Amino acid sequence: MFVIKIGGTNGVNFEAVTADVAALAKSGRKVVVVHGGSGETNAISEQLGHPPRFVTSPSGFTSRYTDRATLEIFAMVTAGKINTLLVERLQKLGVNALGLSGVDGRLMEAKRKDAIRIIDPATGKQRMLRDDYTGKIETVNGGLLRLLLDAGYTPVVAPLALSAEGEALNVDADRAAAMVAGAVHAEKLVILSNVPGLLRQFPDESTLIPHIAKDKLEPSLEFAEGRMKKKVLGASEALGLGVAEVIFADGRVEQPVSRALAGQGTVIS
Amino acid sequence: MFVIKIGGTNGVNFEAVTADVAALAKSGRKVVVVHGGSGETNAISEQLGHPPRFVTSPSGFTSRYTDRATLEIFAMVTAGKINTLLVERLQKLGVNALGLSGVDGRLMEAKRKDAIRIIDPATGKQRMLRDDYTGKIETVNGGLLRLLLDAGYTPVVAPLALSAEGEALNVDADRAAAMVAGAVHAEKLVILSNVPGLLRQFPDESTLIPHIAKDKLEPSLEFAEGRMKKKVLGASEALGLGVAEVIFADGRVEQPVSRALAGQGTVIS
Repeated sequence: MFVIKIGGTNGVNFEAVTADVAALAKSGRKVVVVHGGSGETNAISEQLGHPPRFVTSPSGFTSRYTDRATLEIFAMVTAGKINTLLVERLQKLGVNALGLSGVDGRLMEAKRKDAIRIIDPATGKQRMLRDDYTGKIETVNGGLLRLLLDAGYTPVVAPLALSAEGEALNVDADRAAAMVAGAVHAEKLVILSNVPGLLRQFPDESTLIPHIAKDKLEPSLEFAEGRMKKKVLGASEALGLGVAEVIFADGRVEQPVSRALAGQGTVIS
Repeated sequence: MFVIKIGGTNGVNFEAVTADVAALAKSGRKVVVVHGGSGETNAISEQLGHPPRFVTSPSGFTSRYTDRATLEIFAMVTAGKINTLLVERLQKLGVNALGLSGVDGRLMEAKRKDAIRIIDPATGKQRMLRDDYTGKIETVNGGLLRLLLDAGYTPVVAPLALSAEGEALNVDADRAAAMVAGAVHAEKLVILSNVPGLLRQFPDESTLIPHIAKDKLEPSLEFAEGRMKKKVLGASEALGLGVAEVIFADGRVEQPVSRALAGQGTVIS
């Protein structure tokens, strides 16, 4: 069983990824696809007159500020557009794909971060932000994924979750992929993005780190720029949940999944 | 087993409908919800600078002209927004709802109407329209719905389908509900909208037709205005597929589903 995380946009070659996923699925391997959608959400938010806003935590993590209107746009774009188009593309390739977001059948339950500490960009000082519909995934309904996989469907998962109170929440797709990989006992989690892996000196691609021992992951956080930080956190969570190998790999190339599974990228094991 | 079709917008009381669906589901009845989304798609299409267009067939049926851009907006709004918000609302009420569109697991397969005959509004003459991503549902994957129902999930279905070639298509939600009702061998199909049922003299609500014998449905098409024509066609399809009773009922009132099941509206049996 493999879990493949596809970066929302930013040059990831959707055609190549889906062709590769189809080849895997047809060879009898079970696959779960998890995707993002930040880039497209930003574009459509702008068009709808509700431009995206981002906040940075004191420890340097950047995340979307998700008020209720943003949450609905995020749901529309990720669960409605990106998910549907991925499922359509896989279906065209003969894979019986089935799209879900984390609200469906309580696939992903998350704790809502109803008050988050941020650095105010205007003052540089810390302050609390409320009314944010972002969550941290706590459980994944592995039974639902197994039900679908056993019946021959290939799940394609959009990054929404439900709070205990039943509110839809925006969740980080890399960490969603990690939690899904843990829940389905995946052998490998492949995280595709628009870089070849973890770079010692971002953005110099010649400084790719080919391998990290799983107990040496923590120190490598220092090399992680921006969104790569969450991928490293996701990798750590997946390994902690028993996934044997996490691979950060280039989603812009031909056969991105096969290359990643063959060890091209940053392999953490 | 009941199939409940919820009109996209137009004053249907989503809160009352979902509360009623939750009461049914909790009493142990199996329910499938099918929804539309035309009104909301129109609003968001306008906002995205791609205003909706409608075409009328020579026999008087009106449908959305769905080019590829419109299809993607339709998917976004119906499968992403309306579906997610319905699932969220049902989950809040304790129902383990799970949203799908017809592309998921090939839930609904449709024949693409790649060339449709329309009346040109400018000239009043007939002409052929191509490049339309609208379909007529031919089969519903009842096995997938049963798999989910048997596992305790309440499916919520958005009106998209897949063509044989694997293209996503916009389908009519009333007829989708009819085909779904046939596929799951529903006892009753309830079609909720912003009128109390079929009216002998639209829009005079005092002319509600309380009952139509199923073999007398054809002549009642003459009373059906606009979108009600498709509801009557849907009813006819559902009855032909073995559904015992179809009820057109008012979705604007409190307890709309219970009232409909109790016979308020136009009952066709």
